[in-house]
Amino acid sequence: MLRNAIRILQRFGSREGILTGHFDRLLVSGKAVSSRDRTKCVSFFLGIDGGGTKTECVVGDNSRVLGRSVGSTIKIKKVGEDAAGRALESAVAEACRSAGVTPQQITRTCIGIAGSSIPEVTDWTYSVLKQLVAGEVQVVNDALIAHHAAFRGRPGVLLIAGTGSNVLGINDCGESGRAGGWGPMISDEGSGFWIGRRAVAYAMRAYDGKQPTSLLDAVMRAWDLKTIEELVSMANSNPPPDFSSLLPAVLQCADGGDKLAGEILISAAEELARLATIVVRKLWPEISKVNVAVTGGVFAHSPQIRQRFGELVRAKHPGAAVNLEPVHPVMGALSMARKCNSASAS
Amino acid sequence: MLRNAIRILQRFGSREGILTGHFDRLLVSGKAVSSRDRTKCVSFFLGIDGGGTKTECVVGDNSRVLGRSVGSTIKIKKVGEDAAGRALESAVAEACRSAGVTPQQITRTCIGIAGSSIPEVTDWTYSVLKQLVAGEVQVVNDALIAHHAAFRGRPGVLLIAGTGSNVLGINDCGESGRAGGWGPMISDEGSGFWIGRRAVAYAMRAYDGKQPTSLLDAVMRAWDLKTIEELVSMANSNPPPDFSSLLPAVLQCADGGDKLAGEILISAAEELARLATIVVRKLWPEISKVNVAVTGGVFAHSPQIRQRFGELVRAKHPGAAVNLEPVHPVMGALSMARKCNSASAS
Repeated sequence: MLRNAIRILQRFGSREGILTGHFDRLLVSGKAVSSRDRTKCVSFFLGIDGGGTKTECVVGDNSRVLGRSVGSTIKIKKVGEDAAGRALESAVAEACRSAGVTPQQITRTCIGIAGSSIPEVTDWTYSVLKQLVAGEVQVVNDALIAHHAAFRGRPGVLLIAGTGSNVLGINDCGESGRAGGWGPMISDEGSGFWIGRRAVAYAMRAYDGKQPTSLLDAVMRAWDLKTIEELVSMANSNPPPDFSSLLPAVLQCADGGDKLAGEILISAAEELARLATIVVRKLWPEISKVNVAVTGGVFAHSPQIRQRFGELVRAKHPGAAVNLEPVHPVMGALSMARKCNSASAS
Repeated sequence: MLRNAIRILQRFGSREGILTGHFDRLLVSGKAVSSRDRTKCVSFFLGIDGGGTKTECVVGDNSRVLGRSVGSTIKIKKVGEDAAGRALESAVAEACRSAGVTPQQITRTCIGIAGSSIPEVTDWTYSVLKQLVAGEVQVVNDALIAHHAAFRGRPGVLLIAGTGSNVLGINDCGESGRAGGWGPMISDEGSGFWIGRRAVAYAMRAYDGKQPTSLLDAVMRAWDLKTIEELVSMANSNPPPDFSSLLPAVLQCADGGDKLAGEILISAAEELARLATIVVRKLWPEISKVNVAVTGGVFAHSPQIRQRFGELVRAKHPGAAVNLEPVHPVMGALSMARKCNSASAS
């Protein structure tokens, strides 16, 4: 019942609902920590960012960060439940160890994951974490922890461009709105996957037209392939290959002055700015000052995308305050785990 | 040995080789029909177009078409070998029946298939056909039969936009060149698959931005889906859904004045014109008169795409003679089966 209620709230909240304040409070599940418990021991909180490529954990008390870890992805659609379970267990164990606490001392955990609107993903994550750590477990969308890391519950628009892409905005009335993030086949514009796939497409187009580009060689090297046939077969395999693993190769080609690679980065920035505009227009129909923040490997590793994205958003929305320093979503998860605690105890 | 040689020639020919004249002659396999055979009986030829959505067969003698059939796809990557085998058998049987001949009376068969550069596909097609019909069997790329249908071995650029897209040009020196057709994940611009996938992407983008469009409802109806979640799950399933099945819905929306649907068709025409330009530039580096022809369901069913494509190609290449009446690839296959016969007998 409770898990169903959480799921409904998450799915509702993840598209058009109100995500702050009482939403967080409703998400708190299970028994509250009593005043007596709180006076006799310190509370420990676990924040987790379950991304498409890696899993980050951070353990803290009410104010400090005590330990961290980075493990492999727990995306079950990508690596399967067994590998994902092992990755989650080892990442949690390592973070706890580095913090000097046991998983049984954790008071509350908040995890943000891509694909939280898929019931199997949410259920699996919740049940595995419940076996790994003590206390309450909150499973939310990856965009929500990132937004929290950027704005701590205040209004703003958060752009994610990692393995996938996604935008979450929350306005002054607490209304939320999203854009993008509908999966690699039809969406995910400007993401690492999108950039990698476009790199292969542009490389093949250059091959067709006998145009010079360093992209084709870079892609072949990155994927350790020998022939064009191998590349085409790999690119069209089921399930699709990890196109986002080509991001470093594309960035390197662009740095080396490759025209096509540079065009791909500029078009990624344009796509991300377009997604931002969709959310700004939806949530701030009147001209207004809006805070925009960014996160994810694409923003973190490409100054060119950050700069062009910033220019485009400022040109479109002169009232926007754009912070191009990527935020750390896992810190939002930790903050939400703490916040839930105070909400449930109050 | 011979099959390997054919394969090598096909793979070579399918990208950069010389496809006409002696290439056809080399593809002729097995024993030649003797003069005695030719005088005592009529030769019957079978042409097959194995497309991504349907299989067309045509049976003829040296000059006339005697029978036809249309069956379901024989694309093994899509429907599996069993269903593909049954589809091929029934299409061949029906075409022979309607021509009043038996499969054992067929002198030579030519089949054009997408994916002919994949050894498994070529081997499977060859061995199944050898069991179904008498005489020689020639397995070639789908673009080659379409080009033959349009130009009968003369120079020209043939644009295919069906389930997938593809361009084959052969210039005055017999040199061939291709563009596109590298598979749906990285290429196939302007194809039915590309149009359908873009329709879902644009529908979701409109949903994000609360923009009005008839596309979302049309897609949901075409795929018999009830919720957005079902649509996103379907669009990202492995293997991917048949996006090209959405083409009629997109065309209908565009006819009804839907702005997004119209934009998709225009961009498909632009992509196809871009592919044509790649091949024209490669094979006709000097300004010259070049013949351009088209085929496939996208061109056949969308006057808007035909018109815009023609305008763009003529604007880019003022010397081009563009024929916008779609050709029938299966007639190219029949013609190649006949041509092989005269080549082997000569």
